[in-house]
Amino acid sequence: MFPDLLPAKNGEGVTMTFLQEVIDMLLQYVVKTFDRSTKVIDFYYPNELLQAYNWDLSDQPQSLDGILLNCNTALKYAIKTGHPRYFNQLSTGLDMVGLAADWLTSTANTNMFTYEIAPVFVLLEYVTLKKMREMIGWPGGSGDGIFSPGGAISNLYAMLIARFKMFPEVKEKGMAALPRLVAFTSEHSHFSVKKGAAALGIGTDSVILIKADERGRLIPSELERRIIEARQQGFVPFFVSATAGTTVYGAFDPLVAIADICKKYRIWMHVDAAWGGGLLMSQKHRWKLNGADRANSVTWNPHKMMGVPLQCSALLVREEGLMQSCNQMHASYLFQQDKHYDLSYDTGDKALQCGRHVDIFKLWLMWRAKGTTGFEAQIDKCLELAEYLYNKIKNREGYEMVIDGKPQHTNVCFWYVPPSLRNMEDNEERMSRLMKVAPVIKARMMENGTTMVSYQPHGEKVNFFRMVISNPAAAHQDIDFLIEEIERLGQDL
Amino acid sequence: MFPDLLPAKNGEGVTMTFLQEVIDMLLQYVVKTFDRSTKVIDFYYPNELLQAYNWDLSDQPQSLDGILLNCNTALKYAIKTGHPRYFNQLSTGLDMVGLAADWLTSTANTNMFTYEIAPVFVLLEYVTLKKMREMIGWPGGSGDGIFSPGGAISNLYAMLIARFKMFPEVKEKGMAALPRLVAFTSEHSHFSVKKGAAALGIGTDSVILIKADERGRLIPSELERRIIEARQQGFVPFFVSATAGTTVYGAFDPLVAIADICKKYRIWMHVDAAWGGGLLMSQKHRWKLNGADRANSVTWNPHKMMGVPLQCSALLVREEGLMQSCNQMHASYLFQQDKHYDLSYDTGDKALQCGRHVDIFKLWLMWRAKGTTGFEAQIDKCLELAEYLYNKIKNREGYEMVIDGKPQHTNVCFWYVPPSLRNMEDNEERMSRLMKVAPVIKARMMENGTTMVSYQPHGEKVNFFRMVISNPAAAHQDIDFLIEEIERLGQDL
Repeated sequence: MFPDLLPAKNGEGVTMTFLQEVIDMLLQYVVKTFDRSTKVIDFYYPNELLQAYNWDLSDQPQSLDGILLNCNTALKYAIKTGHPRYFNQLSTGLDMVGLAADWLTSTANTNMFTYEIAPVFVLLEYVTLKKMREMIGWPGGSGDGIFSPGGAISNLYAMLIARFKMFPEVKEKGMAALPRLVAFTSEHSHFSVKKGAAALGIGTDSVILIKADERGRLIPSELERRIIEARQQGFVPFFVSATAGTTVYGAFDPLVAIADICKKYRIWMHVDAAWGGGLLMSQKHRWKLNGADRANSVTWNPHKMMGVPLQCSALLVREEGLMQSCNQMHASYLFQQDKHYDLSYDTGDKALQCGRHVDIFKLWLMWRAKGTTGFEAQIDKCLELAEYLYNKIKNREGYEMVIDGKPQHTNVCFWYVPPSLRNMEDNEERMSRLMKVAPVIKARMMENGTTMVSYQPHGEKVNFFRMVISNPAAAHQDIDFLIEEIERLGQDL
Repeated sequence: MFPDLLPAKNGEGVTMTFLQEVIDMLLQYVVKTFDRSTKVIDFYYPNELLQAYNWDLSDQPQSLDGILLNCNTALKYAIKTGHPRYFNQLSTGLDMVGLAADWLTSTANTNMFTYEIAPVFVLLEYVTLKKMREMIGWPGGSGDGIFSPGGAISNLYAMLIARFKMFPEVKEKGMAALPRLVAFTSEHSHFSVKKGAAALGIGTDSVILIKADERGRLIPSELERRIIEARQQGFVPFFVSATAGTTVYGAFDPLVAIADICKKYRIWMHVDAAWGGGLLMSQKHRWKLNGADRANSVTWNPHKMMGVPLQCSALLVREEGLMQSCNQMHASYLFQQDKHYDLSYDTGDKALQCGRHVDIFKLWLMWRAKGTTGFEAQIDKCLELAEYLYNKIKNREGYEMVIDGKPQHTNVCFWYVPPSLRNMEDNEERMSRLMKVAPVIKARMMENGTTMVSYQPHGEKVNFFRMVISNPAAAHQDIDFLIEEIERLGQDL
């Protein structure tokens, strides 16, 4: 314990010095983050890192100097996720206004459950969700929604609410009272749809994966065929999760055709736009989400394409009040009905969570700072860079594209084929050797610390690189660097 | 957009100035937080607050000065949750080391799903969960766990894993393949047990509420009776959620007796110690959790009694590997099996979430700073203050205690009876007038901005104040102040 830090008497001086020292360290880290001459990562294997420092927790306190050293060490081994050459995840970048807003959020240290204890943040959630619904195209921005801890939970909410809408008795009676439900989503959709079905007691077997076309888009006629088939088998189709921006290919499912089918068979239409939602900001690219306005619910993660610091995920719901009916438990110690203000602002009972982290302020403040046009410019730039990469490698020696055609999102999927494999016949041996290329190059990237990009197998396709660009700091030179670095690290394989 | 902030070329100067200006504002706020002469809250009704400022989002960017003004406004209307006279929730206080750690977390801006992108934080989660399991009393700290977005989700995880343990086929087949399950918890338990049952497709009717004694503790013989009854009716009891520190009364269920029953009937025993878990840090008070070492899972929220900034909630599970089997979906784009490091550190697939916020660093750093003994001292002090309050009001004119006896936790529940009601007969009219007293005093507290404390009805008991103390900044003078303030604001009622 530090008897000398606030709230200790006369603790102000020591506290201000300590906090300022931490901030100086963070400001240095911010500057290094954007400096291309620093490493993205100073990689250590787990065992090495465990031994590199004493991380143990003990009975006795450490000195303030020790604490500053801890902070320094944590930053030394951290990944610079805002580095212009960090391409590893859908969430990259470090927005300065977003960062400032997150610092403020930590300092305000409150909880979203009631207006009583988070008046500003509750209002900003209201204002921002409405704006997001307007951008989806729901008349007057009407509807409902919530910020949740990530896209997987937003998708789980959608499935939960869809089930409740069709069978409200499920809340009290459970699945035992219901017929056998089935949900549909493309074979390229995010794993959270299945994870949600498992958790909700629906079961992964009841998630029917619909075939996608060669570019990763759900095939509507296949969806309809499987819906009819499921009905004939006595199942009740209740939920279709279309994807706007798949995780690997960046594909946009044909939402209008899916909406027609959902309407015809009276099935809840959800759009998982966790990754693609940001494109609604762009006049040039928003057509890819045409039909999202006909959805019953939409997941949209501003922490991905919009560069908002983690975490920031919204679930938007077209019908107002449904979330509340589905999840409310009327806890009398939180949601007292005889409060002195308008209770419609006590939104906490809509959530599965009780306490809920404040994720709204960073998004709201960034939106104020950039305006919609600022988000548009940074998103358009990322898509332009993806096309630049695609054009640069599509005919380049040593590269094979996983899918044909211009990228739909910023995902560019490709194999790097080292010289030793270039003249081999396309047989099993080549496949099994090609499979090992990306993991080795990735390991070398991390050991060198120069860049990071993800790889994975997909269906029958062996390991390939999945490049994604969501960091406004990335520039043409970083794309050029990535290509040269892959070649440098992989040419001997 | 700010072409002049980083990552813009030569943006360093503008960026450092901007971030420092925000920090100066935050440091001022921190100092004011602990200053008893400032208000806890500058209250505005929702409509007033909506109109007090232009909160709208627009197409066009704002200037940096505008952004600073936004920050200033957000802080102006915020609740000072670290103020020594803010007693409204179980999470209060503002720890300086925790705050610094949260600022660092925002700056590192990464995600818990793999070691690859969060090496330090993944290791610290490992170290800290192990330490927490040691404190629960599991041999060698063995077992499993995860940090989740709040106690409600931790409790939901527990129920999910318990169900999977007994019926692993539920993951694929859903609840349709299972017999009718029932869960048990006390009538005083947290609403998240029911919320979880609704979400998981079990249904709230299948949560059997067990009678508690006059101090709010589950009655073990009642539990056993209801288990037998449920079995006779053909239900399968699978889950008992005992509470260590109930939300309103702060009661600790008799865990040893409950453990015996769970063992006898082979039922998963969960302990919801979201609120009471912190007492494990105290030599003086940890006996209240005796028997928690026999649980299969424990929820423990360091963001409550330990004063860690929001959010920080852990679910601890005795059996290793179960969370992974229950939740994993093997997403090949994240959890590649041919990575170059030890894959047991890629813990993300244990979670229901995909992306997961970094909640560990603030807890770890605070633990380093205080040591276990530091936490112990601050927790003991809060309990001592609760006893001080209890002793002060138990015989004071105008006060009635809701339950007899010394507080078990820091919860002190009482009615303030204004002079006009003191000599009334104990009849319906008195009850209906007493019911209105706490809401009016609370509204006046908020309008005056001097202090905040929660109230609620409970069972047949009309609105009473529930005082809780978790803020190390609170002192005897603040308890004295609270009493005088209630009397000042309520004497005319």
